Amino acid sequence: MQKVGVVGVGITKFGKRNDANMNLLAWEAINAALQDAGIEQKDVDFFTVGNAGVWSEELLPAVTVGDYAGLTPKGTMRVEAACATGSAAIRVAYQSIASGSAKIALAVGVEKMYGVPVPTVVELIGRAGNFFWEFENFGLTFPGYYALYASAYMAKYEVKEEDLALVSVKNHYYGSLNPYAQFQKRVSVDEVMKSKYVAYPLKLLDSSPITDGAAAVVLASEELARKLTDTPVWIKAQGVASGSSNLSKRSDFLGLEASVEASRQAYKAAGIEEPTKQIDVATVHDCFTIAEILAYEDLGFAKRGEGIRLIREEQTYKGGLIPVNLDGGLKAKGHPIGATGVGMAVEAVKQLRRELPSTRQADIKNGVALTHNVGGTGHFAYVTIYSL
Amino acid sequence: MQKVGVVGVGITKFGKRNDANMNLLAWEAINAALQDAGIEQKDVDFFTVGNAGVWSEELLPAVTVGDYAGLTPKGTMRVEAACATGSAAIRVAYQSIASGSAKIALAVGVEKMYGVPVPTVVELIGRAGNFFWEFENFGLTFPGYYALYASAYMAKYEVKEEDLALVSVKNHYYGSLNPYAQFQKRVSVDEVMKSKYVAYPLKLLDSSPITDGAAAVVLASEELARKLTDTPVWIKAQGVASGSSNLSKRSDFLGLEASVEASRQAYKAAGIEEPTKQIDVATVHDCFTIAEILAYEDLGFAKRGEGIRLIREEQTYKGGLIPVNLDGGLKAKGHPIGATGVGMAVEAVKQLRRELPSTRQADIKNGVALTHNVGGTGHFAYVTIYSL
Repeated sequence: MQKVGVVGVGITKFGKRNDANMNLLAWEAINAALQDAGIEQKDVDFFTVGNAGVWSEELLPAVTVGDYAGLTPKGTMRVEAACATGSAAIRVAYQSIASGSAKIALAVGVEKMYGVPVPTVVELIGRAGNFFWEFENFGLTFPGYYALYASAYMAKYEVKEEDLALVSVKNHYYGSLNPYAQFQKRVSVDEVMKSKYVAYPLKLLDSSPITDGAAAVVLASEELARKLTDTPVWIKAQGVASGSSNLSKRSDFLGLEASVEASRQAYKAAGIEEPTKQIDVATVHDCFTIAEILAYEDLGFAKRGEGIRLIREEQTYKGGLIPVNLDGGLKAKGHPIGATGVGMAVEAVKQLRRELPSTRQADIKNGVALTHNVGGTGHFAYVTIYSL
Repeated sequence: MQKVGVVGVGITKFGKRNDANMNLLAWEAINAALQDAGIEQKDVDFFTVGNAGVWSEELLPAVTVGDYAGLTPKGTMRVEAACATGSAAIRVAYQSIASGSAKIALAVGVEKMYGVPVPTVVELIGRAGNFFWEFENFGLTFPGYYALYASAYMAKYEVKEEDLALVSVKNHYYGSLNPYAQFQKRVSVDEVMKSKYVAYPLKLLDSSPITDGAAAVVLASEELARKLTDTPVWIKAQGVASGSSNLSKRSDFLGLEASVEASRQAYKAAGIEEPTKQIDVATVHDCFTIAEILAYEDLGFAKRGEGIRLIREEQTYKGGLIPVNLDGGLKAKGHPIGATGVGMAVEAVKQLRRELPSTRQADIKNGVALTHNVGGTGHFAYVTIYSL
């Protein structure tokens, strides 16, 4: 496989972006990524657009985004893997170069979720599972899925709601340090505990928000990457797996099997045997606080049942055993579905390039960062390893 | 780039398939393709699901299809490129092998369009352009887009509606010979002329139908392809391009620029300089009769303005200069959006393997077939060259 480097990254302010439609949001990120890479649209051979977009008025986001961004007539497609859509968009751009068919490819993830009638966006997200067996018959909403996992985990490992709240406290703390984050304010355990229940035991402040936003990366072949930048960040490996659409088929609710499988593949390909010793910084898919705890265990940062200790002991803060979500995570940075995975890549690259303010810059020793992006409730999982 | 072979193909009966939901339709094609390849689900490293599906109740077709077909926990994603979705699904599976990340990959295209409230599916297809400028402001429907092209072409080259009808006559003739086709009856020029106008000058019998259906291909690395089959069909090249989302930006309505660009790339990579001499058989995107004529010219089968002569002279029938759509095309075989491009690949492979009844089996001299799959009105174009 040919080596593929990230040579440019761009991200928009996440949040309620009434100032921009989908095309403009995407362009904001694409423009930043092109400038960061020092290239123009004509230099791009192929681009992918990650957009879940069932609530969008535009049926063909890949062409409207491409047209607005001046990328026409370049080849393109839209990709979707629920909340892991952004990572899927990166995969297609990455493999277009690794296969030798493109020299420079761009992946943009974008989602415009505000301005959609709220029952619609919430109902549609509730369908991120098996519509017929779960949504239609039992009326499960999306927080309800993760609530099942939270309840099972709490019962098995004697964990309290206050423990889960610690994830929200950490991620809001880092969100307060990230000007691109949707929420730039800290929260306390007490505030999390006092927020309204969405689906017991998960409360509003355990949950990631509805968000508008976009992020983009420019990828290049090894030869071009070395010409374009002195600090290429390589895509070292990517693992990808799926989980059953019907939750009744899952063996337990104590972890996401797809995350375990995707990380196993990625670690094997990247030669990672001791994740907490070899990885400098990670972004994981904290769509709910429980999801971050499950991720610690699924990714091998802690043994099964011991993930909660990492957050209790503040081992996933900067300076800890393995810093996680120093950008605020989905919880505080925000979760614009199609953009989230690309936003994680932007964070990984900036961390490895040591470009962030010292308050949230991880100590880069091995030059290795991980991103973990989940679609649905482990229906999709993409784990990507970036390295200097 | 590593060589990639098609080692298994499967297709369902196209048409009104009230007997099957989306997952079952997809499985019907996947099962046939796995059997044709002589492999099982566990042998598949990665799969892609081509599904436009904005009218589907399932938000995550890639996981519901994968689950139903026994492909979980294999990595997956959904891809979309409007009516070229199937070719985009093939591209991602193809590059996953060409890049070395998979040895065997499967691409399935599926669409369930019946059973959706008809104003919804028709309205949604009408959005296959630029929603804000065209659909919302001017009320263009999808046939309306191609009607603009038909009117411009007829005016410029002195072409009559009866000439366009000849495409429908040819494709219905071949549909009558294909048991998988939606329409298995012939039509006459007179019948086409008497059918109702959809958007002048295009009538019902100039138009492809609403269709349920699925198709699948199994792809393998060169080494495995040679082990799995004595008749591998290689993906020789693929070109891909996009067109402006807003039709007012097109230079003229006499051809699809994206098709020209995609074929230019594919021909260059495959070493094709004289298409009609080097290609034995083609399937082109005849969503409307005018679209097949434009394709003849965009793909270099005829000079600009001379495509209409090919059909007048029956040069695109079996035995002619270059046989086109011997499976009935979108017009008669049917057009289940996400499945169409994969169905074209199935046809190309069966033609190259000389597996079809003599009535519609092309003469295979060079061992080269072409598929041309368009999304929207040239918003996407994928041209793929298959060879023995």
